Amino acid sequence: MLQIDLNCDLGESYGRYRIGMDEQIIPIVSSVNIACGYHAGDPTVMRKTVEIAAAHGVSIGAHPGFPDLQGFGRRRMDIGPEDLTNMLVYQIGALQAFVKSSGLTLNHVKPHGALYNMAAVNRETARAIIKAVQMVDPNIILVGLAGSVLVTEGLKCGLKVASEVFADRTYRADGTLTPRGTPDAYIHDPEEAADRLTELISTGCIRAADGTLLKVSADTVCVHGDNEKAVQFALALRERMESAGVAIKPMSF
Amino acid sequence: MLQIDLNCDLGESYGRYRIGMDEQIIPIVSSVNIACGYHAGDPTVMRKTVEIAAAHGVSIGAHPGFPDLQGFGRRRMDIGPEDLTNMLVYQIGALQAFVKSSGLTLNHVKPHGALYNMAAVNRETARAIIKAVQMVDPNIILVGLAGSVLVTEGLKCGLKVASEVFADRTYRADGTLTPRGTPDAYIHDPEEAADRLTELISTGCIRAADGTLLKVSADTVCVHGDNEKAVQFALALRERMESAGVAIKPMSF
Amino acid sequence: MLQIDLNCDLGESYGRYRIGMDEQIIPIVSSVNIACGYHAGDPTVMRKTVEIAAAHGVSIGAHPGFPDLQGFGRRRMDIGPEDLTNMLVYQIGALQAFVKSSGLTLNHVKPHGALYNMAAVNRETARAIIKAVQMVDPNIILVGLAGSVLVTEGLKCGLKVASEVFADRTYRADGTLTPRGTPDAYIHDPEEAADRLTELISTGCIRAADGTLLKVSADTVCVHGDNEKAVQFALALRERMESAGVAIKPMSF
Amino acid sequence: MLQIDLNCDLGESYGRYRIGMDEQIIPIVSSVNIACGYHAGDPTVMRKTVEIAAAHGVSIGAHPGFPDLQGFGRRRMDIGPEDLTNMLVYQIGALQAFVKSSGLTLNHVKPHGALYNMAAVNRETARAIIKAVQMVDPNIILVGLAGSVLVTEGLKCGLKVASEVFADRTYRADGTLTPRGTPDAYIHDPEEAADRLTELISTGCIRAADGTLLKVSADTVCVHGDNEKAVQFALALRERMESAGVAIKPMSF
Repeated sequence: MLQIDLNCDLGESYGRYRIGMDEQIIPIVSSVNIACGYHAGDPTVMRKTVEIAAAHGVSIGAHPGFPDLQGFGRRRMDIGPEDLTNMLVYQIGALQAFVKSSGLTLNHVKPHGALYNMAAVNRETARAIIKAVQMVDPNIILVGLAGSVLVTEGLKCGLKVASEVFADRTYRADGTLTPRGTPDAYIHDPEEAADRLTELISTGCIRAADGTLLKVSADTVCVHGDNEKAVQFALALRERMESAGVAIKPMSF
Repeated sequence: MLQIDLNCDLGESYGRYRIGMDEQIIPIVSSVNIACGYHAGDPTVMRKTVEIAAAHGVSIGAHPGFPDLQGFGRRRMDIGPEDLTNMLVYQIGALQAFVKSSGLTLNHVKPHGALYNMAAVNRETARAIIKAVQMVDPNIILVGLAGSVLVTEGLKCGLKVASEVFADRTYRADGTLTPRGTPDAYIHDPEEAADRLTELISTGCIRAADGTLLKVSADTVCVHGDNEKAVQFALALRERMESAGVAIKPMSF
Repeated sequence: MLQIDLNCDLGESYGRYRIGMDEQIIPIVSSVNIACGYHAGDPTVMRKTVEIAAAHGVSIGAHPGFPDLQGFGRRRMDIGPEDLTNMLVYQIGALQAFVKSSGLTLNHVKPHGALYNMAAVNRETARAIIKAVQMVDPNIILVGLAGSVLVTEGLKCGLKVASEVFADRTYRADGTLTPRGTPDAYIHDPEEAADRLTELISTGCIRAADGTLLKVSADTVCVHGDNEKAVQFALALRERMESAGVAIKPMSF
Repeated sequence: MLQIDLNCDLGESYGRYRIGMDEQIIPIVSSVNIACGYHAGDPTVMRKTVEIAAAHGVSIGAHPGFPDLQGFGRRRMDIGPEDLTNMLVYQIGALQAFVKSSGLTLNHVKPHGALYNMAAVNRETARAIIKAVQMVDPNIILVGLAGSVLVTEGLKCGLKVASEVFADRTYRADGTLTPRGTPDAYIHDPEEAADRLTELISTGCIRAADGTLLKVSADTVCVHGDNEKAVQFALALRERMESAGVAIKPMSF
């Protein structure tokens, strides 16, 4: 039976500041990536998010980022590889404590924001992330952009690696995502997204903007949960997957 | 054979800022309490301190504190018990990741600064700390001021609890420490400190400023390592203990 | 002609995190208290809030607080008076730079959250705030809870001081606010709030919960702007004031 | 009479963390650049440093940097130009409040660390800094690396701009500094540094490593004060300048 994982970035509230419709999106997805207090999230948000995820039986991953709450981890920072590894061990370890105290196991790690983007193209950044996962627990799954340097390097280093695709983004003929800001970068219709995803899961290929068929690994699909419409999009996608006989299940290797 | 643990607070440097003579003090003590990034310490400092401690075979504990780097965790903050527990789980979990990646086990938790002082007298604060230790691992030893509310509550809750005394402080007849700033609050002569400590270990009693004999539990003795003189003091204390036949060994229950 | 100032705490967003309906509330009030980056707000939020306030011709004040974004400045911190004064000079100076660059003058300073509450009853805290205002500019108006220690001390020190009342809170017979959490602590009906405020402005007295008439100074009335209903409440209050012939005008001395 | 300004970066301590021999270096220099709480410094350190500088009659400038205490402002951050301008207005305004409360005027602004280096080559970064200075006070002198984009752009925008040279660094034939880490990047002998500086001041030229004579503007010379040896170096430089008849005076235009 065909299967796919749906993941969502959440636990991004901070103190009195609320972001994300975590309670609405968690029942729809099979995996969550929880912010670890550097770019978003705080210890109480982390604990509550872990508990909600545990209650819904979804897989829990860490979503560590740059130490930049004001920039939400979306601004590149030139942090040396050793410091970067240590910052990631710190964040993953902190989240892991909440996961364990809920009787669960941390399933995966997915870098956030600018760190995710840097790791997709920069070998040194990718290696610093891989090192952190190895230090915490080499059984943790590393999640990276499908086809990225992070995925290639992770496999080379012997980690379990999950390739991530985006349900609401289009691709260019060279296999890269159409950049945000470009016309047609986004897919707004959940039916169209579901069609593309079904094709991808069954054939291993996705159609680029110009019609080219691209071979893309897809272990997990990122959906958003930061507004009512995003939640509806995710729900529609889930329903279409299920009616097409694609099981929504956490990544596992 | 008589034995005692010597502990020291360290790993308190931050980025380019250096505090403490960690490399000098670690070989002298049997346990270290490592700052966890809230009131002091950063991920790189944490990792390096863990590695030095591991290399010297000393026991490693977490030294979590308030989220107040500017105040070095020495300013009281009114943080609700649930938030406080979560902040502690976060910090302990983060340190634990470095300890585990060095192949070791986190041995104890000792709250820092204003948090330590509040937990010594306030039941709600004490319970919040105890809850955090229970969430992370109920086998971790909790370290508190000898005779304090934290010790009493910790025992009541079934934790392993170590009572801490200070080698360089005097006591009042009611069993409390002579407050800093009071004349004779400190003992500056390591020989005098060693005499008192030897008596304490062999008799279970310490002499207050007015001569009263006080019954005091002492599982671990805090020494300082923040300047050359403090390191010399600790070294003298250790030598006197050893020549008196008192083994310097980590807390264990 | 009778007059009153309506003030609102705003500029409390941070990075990607949004709090408050600043654009809706600013046209309703005559003064705004802008967060200064310690408990809320960031430089870009501060600048935009100043610019919106300037565009609507409302008076601008600084709303400095404790260095505790995670606790939104609502947790008491034991900060020494000199450090506190310096933190306030820092925050007020930072906001002042944006105010000046808009061609305006900083009109007032109102402490936020736990700092406001501590200054209402603690002379040392009040004096630390007063000192900061004197250091930055002794012509700045200090805003404190009507009848509080901050008001008394501010007057004693020769500052211009504005007494603040709350439109949506009830008072006890001893002149203090009915504590949050107590039944009837809040007034939810804008008509009732407007009746009380009109009486207060015209007679200098407000009726306590038990019917006692209390003499209360009222230079400025705090309204909220953190949700749609709060904005409606403020609007209703403003309309009732104006139809009762009470001018809504900034504090001035 | 020939003259030059000697400047030093200081006020870089933070809470209990001490960096820099500020009290030793201030009497030697004619200008100080004070950290503003983002990459280093805190409000109490800022105030004390301003007061010491005021007591010695040296010129005071702001030394704003990236919001990265852990990295000491030495890690590049990709912050958008508007956010960057606002962060700088914030920091400069905060320092200005302390300077004014000491009865003085803020004389200059010099970006710190990674921001300084980025502004030396990147026009957008340079413009964001220039905008901040213009917003706070267009009479403030902007300090940048001699020959850099920041200097060129500052002049183009009508600011008063001071060109900075480094007493202890060598230059390459193309006019750039020999990169740190390269052999002969540093000059360790104060006599040699003084010779080069004297030649630079009298001829407007400095000799590159390969002997080429380079034309270099020099309004101010950066000296260090972070260790005993650096202070001695600065002192020797000052004495040689004075005996060569070069007056040590603050930048002014």
